[in-house]
Parts: sequence; C-alpha cells; structure tokens
Amino acid sequence: MSDSTGLDYRAAGVDLDAAERAKERLKSLVAATRDENTLSELGLFGGLYSVPSGVDAPVLVSSADGVGTKLKVAFMADRHDTVGQCLVNHCVNDILVQGARPLFFLDYLASGGMDEDMVTSVVTGVAQACQENACALLGGETAQMPDFYSADEYDLAGFIVGIVERDKVLDGSRVRAGDVLIGLPSSGLHTNGYTLARKIVFEAMGLTVNDTFPGADLTVGDVLLDVHRSYLNVLKPVLETNRITGLAHITGGGIPGNLPRILGTELGARVDLSSWDVPNTFQVLGEGGGVERDEMLRVFNMGVGMIVLTAPDDADQVLSDLRDGGAMPWVMGEVEAGEGVRW
Amino acid sequence: MSDSTGLDYRAAGVDLDAAERAKERLKSLVAATRDENTLSELGLFGGLYSVPSGVDAPVLVSSADGVGTKLKVAFMADRHDTVGQCLVNHCVNDILVQGARPLFFLDYLASGGMDEDMVTSVVTGVAQACQENACALLGGETAQMPDFYSADEYDLAGFIVGIVERDKVLDGSRVRAGDVLIGLPSSGLHTNGYTLARKIVFEAMGLTVNDTFPGADLTVGDVLLDVHRSYLNVLKPVLETNRITGLAHITGGGIPGNLPRILGTELGARVDLSSWDVPNTFQVLGEGGGVERDEMLRVFNMGVGMIVLTAPDDADQVLSDLRDGGAMPWVMGEVEAGEGVRW
Repeated sequence: MSDSTGLDYRAAGVDLDAAERAKERLKSLVAATRDENTLSELGLFGGLYSVPSGVDAPVLVSSADGVGTKLKVAFMADRHDTVGQCLVNHCVNDILVQGARPLFFLDYLASGGMDEDMVTSVVTGVAQACQENACALLGGETAQMPDFYSADEYDLAGFIVGIVERDKVLDGSRVRAGDVLIGLPSSGLHTNGYTLARKIVFEAMGLTVNDTFPGADLTVGDVLLDVHRSYLNVLKPVLETNRITGLAHITGGGIPGNLPRILGTELGARVDLSSWDVPNTFQVLGEGGGVERDEMLRVFNMGVGMIVLTAPDDADQVLSDLRDGGAMPWVMGEVEAGEGVRW
Repeated sequence: MSDSTGLDYRAAGVDLDAAERAKERLKSLVAATRDENTLSELGLFGGLYSVPSGVDAPVLVSSADGVGTKLKVAFMADRHDTVGQCLVNHCVNDILVQGARPLFFLDYLASGGMDEDMVTSVVTGVAQACQENACALLGGETAQMPDFYSADEYDLAGFIVGIVERDKVLDGSRVRAGDVLIGLPSSGLHTNGYTLARKIVFEAMGLTVNDTFPGADLTVGDVLLDVHRSYLNVLKPVLETNRITGLAHITGGGIPGNLPRILGTELGARVDLSSWDVPNTFQVLGEGGGVERDEMLRVFNMGVGMIVLTAPDDADQVLSDLRDGGAMPWVMGEVEAGEGVRW
C-alpha cells in the first residue's frame, strides 16, 4: 500500500512477497534432497519424515549448531555458498560420533533484509551438503529481522536428526585403556575459533580477504572459508564393521575440550603431538597472533578434525579400512587411565 | 593467559569458561524436562531420544522457528524469561496442526557475550514451556559471537520434533467444502508482526516499554511480551476424537497467509469478521499506525491464534469439547469452493 499514508509491513522493513519468491526458488533445491521417507514439501507448517523401517530399536540422535563468526568472513568475501555446507557437515559429524546416520536437517536463516540471491546462495550450500550426506532438507525458517541484522548480513543455524540402533550407540562405554587414537585430517579451521582467527588475520596481521594467505597459494578468504569436512562417507563403512569404540569430533574447545567427552571420568588420553605436522594455516595463526601453544590447542583443531578410537587388536584393520576410504589416518596416541589429555 | 603478550580467545571476546559455567547451571533445568525416552544428558555431542513404542507407523514432524524481533522488546524491557516460552509454544503449535505431539526440542541461542544470568533466564523460559508441553529439552547450542551481536543482545531459534501416526496426519486431505471454521483466541501478538508493531508503538505513538498501554491496565512491555499460547493441551483430547479435519496456526501472514495452507488449491474460506471482537491491542496498533485493515489482517493474528476445521455434523460436539477444555471457541466462518480467503 505505497499510496497509503499509514504504516505497513514493507515500509517497516519486512517484505513478505520477497520472502515468498525466495521460498519458490528454494523449492527445487529442497526437492533434490528428498528420499523415500520424506512425506511433505515446504509450505506446510512442519516437515514430515517416516521413521525408517528395518531398525529394531531406533534411537533418534539430534544436534543443533550455528556457523558462528565464520559468517563474518563470508560477508567480507561476499561468498555465501560454502557456509551452509560447513553447517550441515558440522551437524552430520556431531551425530556421527554417536554412531548415527542423518535422516533430515532444518535450517534457521535470519537476515536483516531478504536478498533473494544471498538467501538462495546460502540455502544452495545447505542443500548441496544435505545431498552429499544423504540427508533430507525437511524445512527451515527464513526470518527477516530488520534493525536486528543489517541487510547484507545474516545468522545461520541448523538442526539435524539422525538414527542409530540402540545397541550401536557410541556413548563411551566401549572405550578401554589402551585403545588406539587414530587422527583424521581436518580440511582447515572447520567451523571454530573464528573470533580469534579473524582478530589475528585481519587485525594483528593486517590482511584482507583478497590477500594471499602466507605460505599458501590461496587467498585469505579461500583459506578461512574452506568447507568443514563431513566424515560420514569415510566412517560409515568402518562403523559397520563394529571395530570403532568411540569417536570425537574436534570442534570448539579443540582436542582437550572434545576428546574427554567420549572418555568418561576414569580414562584420559596421551596424544603424541609429533605424530602429525600441524598444517600451515594453524602455524601462521599461532605465529601471527603470538598465541601460546596450549591456547592454540584449546581453540583450534590443529589439523585433527576427527579422532577414531579402536581396540589395539583392531587398529591395523581400521587404519587399513580408513586408508581404503581415502581418509589419510594416522596413529596419534592412546587411551590411558586417569582423566585428562596429556601431550 | 593474561600474562601473555599474545592473543588469546578470551581477549578476542570468547569466554569458554563462562560458557561451561552457564552450561552447568542449565543442566538441572534441562533434566526436569527429561522423560522415559530421553537417553542422553547435555555434554555428549548429540541428544538421544528413543522412538516411542506403541505407534504403528510413526511419522516424525519437525519445525524450525525463531522468536523474531519480539526479542527487541525483551531487550528494551530487560526481561528474558518469556521469549523462550513463546518460541517453544510456537513450535509446538506448528507441528500440532499436522496432528503431532511433541517429543523433543533444541534451542539455538547466539549472543555477543556470555551473560550467565541472561542465558539462564532465556533457557529457563525454554525449559518451562518444554515441561508444560511434555517435551524433552534434548540439547541446544549456545554460541558466543562477539562483534556479531552486542553483549546484551541475542538471537533465539528453536527446533522441534514430534510424532504422529501416519493415518492421523492432518495434511488438508480431510477438509471439505462446508467444513466449519472454529476460532480459538490468541493471547496477544504471539510471535509475529513485531517489526511493524514496534514501529507503531515506539516510533509513531512515541511510547516506551514502561508506559501504560492505551486501553489496558498493563505496560507496553507486558502487552508486547505476552506469551504465545500453546494449543496442545486444549486440542490434544479433541484431536483424539478424530473430529478435526484440519488446523491452521495463525502466524506470520495472518489468516490469509496461513488458513489456505490447509485448504489446498481447490478450496477457500469465508471468514465472518463480525464473529469476534478484535482485541484492544490490535485496535490500538491499527489506529496508532494508520494501518489499512487488509494489511492488519496480513500481518497480525487479530485475536485468532488457531483455527479448527471440522465437518458441520461434528461442529457442536467439537465446540462443546473445546469449551470444556477452557478454549473459548467460536464459529468464525466456513470452507467453500474456490481458492482464497474472503471476508
């Protein structure tokens, strides 16, 4: 009602028609992720998903996460197709460590405006990663929140539901002293530590997203926006052999913040820091910010995205299976008595 | 490492210890929402929930939502215990309209700082509403995002999973021309239209949160922060009688944006606007902002929080059941041939 002198929703900053148009553009992206258990399309109030048959005692495993301030790098680089992938893969890994495979995902995208191209780009990343992880994108919320977010910024969170047989849940109870720790490389910073990383790179080091990252052939933007890896396709066949006693996804808190979550109160771990070369990205951040080693280990994954635990007798087979799957695993330490992670 | 000259995470604005302390305080709140199907506590990577037995063909119904800019009113009033209730109840209603009862909920709370009292207050509201709706608070993400949100502001989103028997799903297929529309009163604005409402109240009308709301005995803050009603406990017994053919939760888009979602492409509805008195809150907003009637209907619920559809022969019984449950229902129109909502 542009000819009216009264207030309306659009003048207040919320464009319901643009929201509808964006929703239309997203429909085909979402449709591509549907599977035989997906019962509803976008447009109804909630998404419908049949509990898959063939699971005797089905347990749902669910997790919520956000992209965090990695989004700020996406804004600086004006590149919005990777953060959705990071989010989905992060969530997939978070339920994978309990033995679950993903069923469906929902996203929450809140923005100051309703930039259809930006929204479509973000959700394209979400939908692409959903497809790669055989996970239905069941729905989501796209919220317009003017004077909350600026028009070209947004927050992005996600929510995943997976399934696992009750007796296959990895909850730490199978972990024993002597179990071997096998590291799997991260693809980069994944989705953690960006508040510190941005301070180091953009303030202490004075770089921009378009500068070349020191010691790399990539720009700062490329290095910092590197997609968080999903370990689902590499780990799923090995999980089925029943030789994995525990998994730890190395996210916020690093190895000392995440590995103990699967070790309970009586076990700890010894990690051999010389067993892998810390990737250039983390070396540059540590030196550029003058960050202490222990703080680096507490904030960043330091090149270790996932830790696989297995009994000593099974370690060779698990390593071999992981290598066959292209995972580039290495032995990085062992579980031992006494709480805590020792280096 | 305050004695270090290098950067650390805390100096960069992220306090992992405060995050841990807040998590500890939330544990008992969360524990109070657990039920016999809840298998995990906070602290593991994902929450675990057994698929309830006794459902022949279980369908999961899931929805994501945010509180939207109603949060701005909470910031202005420095009152953080109601928005979590609004969020949970909104999500509960969104899956209820497909016939589902809630199983579990996860929240996403992103803040500039980690104000333990504020976080605890928000999650207290979430946990309280989860209890009221017999829904486990299975987990969530509390993200510290300095220079994204200011220290005393936050965004809050939620995700719900519910369950329904496959042949009890309300998907619009049972709705027929002639079905009676029964309105259930909203408690206020619920969780929609706040960008416009705030503009009217705080800019056009020049009120503050502590002023008395015109025509009410409550402050502006009290009126605008009124908790979004859950219709679960009122509708659950009536759903079990199998006499409800469809439900519409009146959220963003108002009656014309939500009622058609259950009517498909061949049916529409005639709504008798004289069948209820538009509550004072909406009258004040409409007059204060000089908002056209059609725009008011498209943005706000106008006093109708939920619309229940039922066959004409069942209408008296449904009305009586709803009245017995304390729902204060009224007949507000009927389904008829031809797409769209007519007044």
